[in-house]
Order: sequence, then structure tokens, then C-alpha cells
Amino acid sequence: MELWYTEKQTPNYGITAKIKETLYTATTPFQELAVIDTVEFGRMLVLDGMVQTTIRDEFVYHEMIAHPALTAHPNPKKVAVIGGGDGGVIREVLKHPSVETAVLVEIDEEVIRASQKYLPEIAGALQDPRVEILVTDGIQHIRDTKDEYDVILVDSTEPVGAAVGLFSESFYANIYEALTADGILVAQTESPLFNQQLIQASFAGIQKSFPITRLYVATVFTYPSGLWSFTMGSKKVCPLEVEREDIPALDTKYYNRAVHYGAFQLPNFVKELVVP
Amino acid sequence: MELWYTEKQTPNYGITAKIKETLYTATTPFQELAVIDTVEFGRMLVLDGMVQTTIRDEFVYHEMIAHPALTAHPNPKKVAVIGGGDGGVIREVLKHPSVETAVLVEIDEEVIRASQKYLPEIAGALQDPRVEILVTDGIQHIRDTKDEYDVILVDSTEPVGAAVGLFSESFYANIYEALTADGILVAQTESPLFNQQLIQASFAGIQKSFPITRLYVATVFTYPSGLWSFTMGSKKVCPLEVEREDIPALDTKYYNRAVHYGAFQLPNFVKELVVP
Repeated sequence: MELWYTEKQTPNYGITAKIKETLYTATTPFQELAVIDTVEFGRMLVLDGMVQTTIRDEFVYHEMIAHPALTAHPNPKKVAVIGGGDGGVIREVLKHPSVETAVLVEIDEEVIRASQKYLPEIAGALQDPRVEILVTDGIQHIRDTKDEYDVILVDSTEPVGAAVGLFSESFYANIYEALTADGILVAQTESPLFNQQLIQASFAGIQKSFPITRLYVATVFTYPSGLWSFTMGSKKVCPLEVEREDIPALDTKYYNRAVHYGAFQLPNFVKELVVP
Repeated sequence: MELWYTEKQTPNYGITAKIKETLYTATTPFQELAVIDTVEFGRMLVLDGMVQTTIRDEFVYHEMIAHPALTAHPNPKKVAVIGGGDGGVIREVLKHPSVETAVLVEIDEEVIRASQKYLPEIAGALQDPRVEILVTDGIQHIRDTKDEYDVILVDSTEPVGAAVGLFSESFYANIYEALTADGILVAQTESPLFNQQLIQASFAGIQKSFPITRLYVATVFTYPSGLWSFTMGSKKVCPLEVEREDIPALDTKYYNRAVHYGAFQLPNFVKELVVP
């Protein structure tokens, strides 16, 4: 018997993957969680029926939400990841030697537990002594924090349920306050093909607080449309003005010096979403 | 009743799209052809069960196989498209005012006919007086041609059936001979995730004939993995040495000046395929 997992990424389109087995399912206070083992992409974390990460392609998203900001910031010491309970973004953050503290702010402890058990390649970095784990509401945590983080990375799920507030203007304004003087925010902002209004709203919301706002993209194979967007808000540094020789050679599979600049070179249909 | 079309892009992974109706199917001397109308991507041309192009996302592939070469060449007057019976690449070629003749070399006349009838937005350019249509084997045509074309674009299907020879070293060597002194070749070379050996072999084959060989990528939403590669072989001009102001502002949805350079900035796992 062949079992296939199909994610309807829109009501009328999706991806389908042959599975070896379902490793774990749970109903948490926040969402439906599943870890399935697929033939093509390996183990896959699925929340509310949407693929969050897979062993084979997780490197793209995790590297690309973290490194442009960590590279652009002159000296990132304290970094917060909002969401991201699988630990992949934390792993990338820790590749920057200046980082002394990486705080994971995840609302759903079950995501952390399941990832540590079933996705150790991704979640293993959560054991690092530089990591602090806060199981709490990221919106509340950011509201209560001032002048604390050098970089804040918003690794949210799609804007449904608990994640809706992670795309709001007031959240971005509070992030601005929670950041230090050179602070940089990066938020994942979904597909430029399927989520155009969300990108426009997020960009406008970030732009209200941050003097420098930039959209960039990467290709995440298992995400809707493949093309994925990230929005950066920066208090002082423009990511494109970083000197080439100041971009560190990291142990990465996607990000590099060329990609640091190339990711910001937007196709017309993407650029038109955010440039008037 | 809901009908869904599923393409297994690998034996274990694929895309699935809800369809409104099947508009046309045919068994040609070369392949199985279908035109289906999908809710998410509109009308879709399918050859041997593989999506070739869709109304909604055809612009990415057609622009990105054509414009980097047409821009890099100092004065492209005569251009050949090998394959590409849907006419989308020809349409993009004709956006360059220097082009006097665009020759479509398609082995399967039924692809041209079906595209003209069911995909007029794509195939309409085939009516242009600058277009010559040759229904013949592209491999044979190139073998018989010397010092004729300024740019040759190989818009092939996957390397199965009649298309196998379109990825061979001898074909690339013959293309070199068919090109004029500043000539440039671009071939579509599949997914950097799923077709790594093909990319390596094509790159090596092109490099044997062409002094300048470069790989670049674009995100084609309905193609396997989303990420798609193109390999350029150039006799004289390096595409990255084109001056910014010499890149024309074309009526395009994907390609622009920034993308012209950005597409060549390869993620590590792609770069490693072709850079020793």
C-alpha cells in the first residue's frame, strides 16, 4: 500500500509526497502537530496541515532568515527568535561567533519537544549553552522588552491562530523598541505568488517603524510556489552596504557572499509589491 | 466531482492541481500532449505527463531563458529557439529591437498547433513576420548550420525520447559552430535539487566548446523543486560584464537589471555542482 501526504497549499493547488511512516501526531493547545517520514524529503514537521520544515530542504529557510541580518549587524551579541521551536534558526544564529545569547521564544512547547525527539539534526542546537528557551507568547515577550536584542528573527507559521499577531503593525513597532541601537528585524513573509497582500501589509507595517526596510527572497522547495519572501527592518545598517570582505565564510549550503546581495535582487512582479 | 491533476515530478514527490476541464489531448509521433485548464495556474501544457508551461507562471521560464543572452550579446540579429513550440521564448526574443529573424526549430508540429489554439497568449508571437518556423529535428538543423545565429536558445523538454540528444556534448559543439563570432548559447538544464548529474554533465559539455560558461537560476513555480537552472555558453561576452545602463528596460514580469546579475549569484549547493 502506498501512502501519500498531500498539502493543499491553496484550495486548488498543492504538493504531494510519498510517506514511509507517520512518526508522531499530537493535538497541542495551539495546533495539530505531525512528524512524517517522506521518501523524497525525509522527516517533515507539519503544523495544522502545513509543511514547516523537512530534513532535506530545511537549510534554505533557516539560513536565509538568519544570515543576512546577522551579517549586516556590526556586532550581534543577543538575538531572539520568535517562533521557530524546531531550533533550525537558532542553529544558524549560533554560527556567528559574536553571538553570546540566542533566545528562543516559542509559544508551543510541544513543537520543541517533538523536534528534539524526531528532528535532532535541526533541534540539536537548542542544547547549546548560549541558548535560552522561553516557552511563552512572543507578542507579550516583545511588548515587555526594551533595548535588549541586537537582532530579532520572526520565524512564524502562516498567519492563522496564534500567529496572526506576528504580522501586525503594533508587533513590529514593539520589536523596534525591543531592539538595540543598531537593531535589525527579519520576518518570514510568505510567498510572493500566493500571499501578495500579506507581503504588502507586512512591508508597510515594518516601514512605519524602521527607516530601512528591504524585501528579499529564497527558493524553499517544499513551500507554496517555491519562492519565499523575508522582510528586513533595520535601524541603521543597509544590508546591501555591507562590504563584501565583511561577509563571513559560514558553513552553509545556501547562503554565501554572492547570495547575500543576490537575494535582494527582486523579480519585477515581486518588486512591484513593495516599491511604489 | 473534483478532478485533480497530479504530476509525479520524482517517483516520490509531485504537485497536484484542481482542474476545471481537459481541453485537448493527443498522441503525437513524439509524445503524449494534453492541455488542461487548472483553477490555480490557468491553462497548462503537459507533455508526457510533465507540466511544460502554464498561463500564470510561464513568464518566469520564458523571460529567463531568453533575456540574459539577448542582453549580453552586443547586437543579436538572428536567433534560433530549439524546441519551444509553445512560442513563449520567441515572444520574449522579439522584445529585443535588434532581432530581425527568430527561427523556431520544433520537431513536433502538434505542439505548435495546440499552443496556437489553446495558449494564444503564449503562442501569438509566432504570427510575427520576423518569425520563421521550421518543423524539423533541431539536432539535424544545428548540424547543418554554420556561422548563422547570434543566439541559440535550447528550450527542450526533459531529457527523454527525442530530447536526449539536446543535452549531449556533440550537440553543444555543433551549436558552437552554428553561432556567429560573438555567439551565445543558453540551454535549460533542469532542477539543481533533482537533476544534479544532468547539470554537471551539461555544464562540462558546454564548457568543452565555449570559453565562457555560466550557470544561472530562476524560480519557476510549477517546475520540480521550484528552482530551475539555465546554462550559458558564450564565445566572447561574459554576461556579468554587461554594463548596467546597457540592460534594456523590457516589458517583463520577472527579468530586470537587478535580476540580470542576481540570477548568477548561486547558492552554495548549486555552485558546488559546477565550480570545482
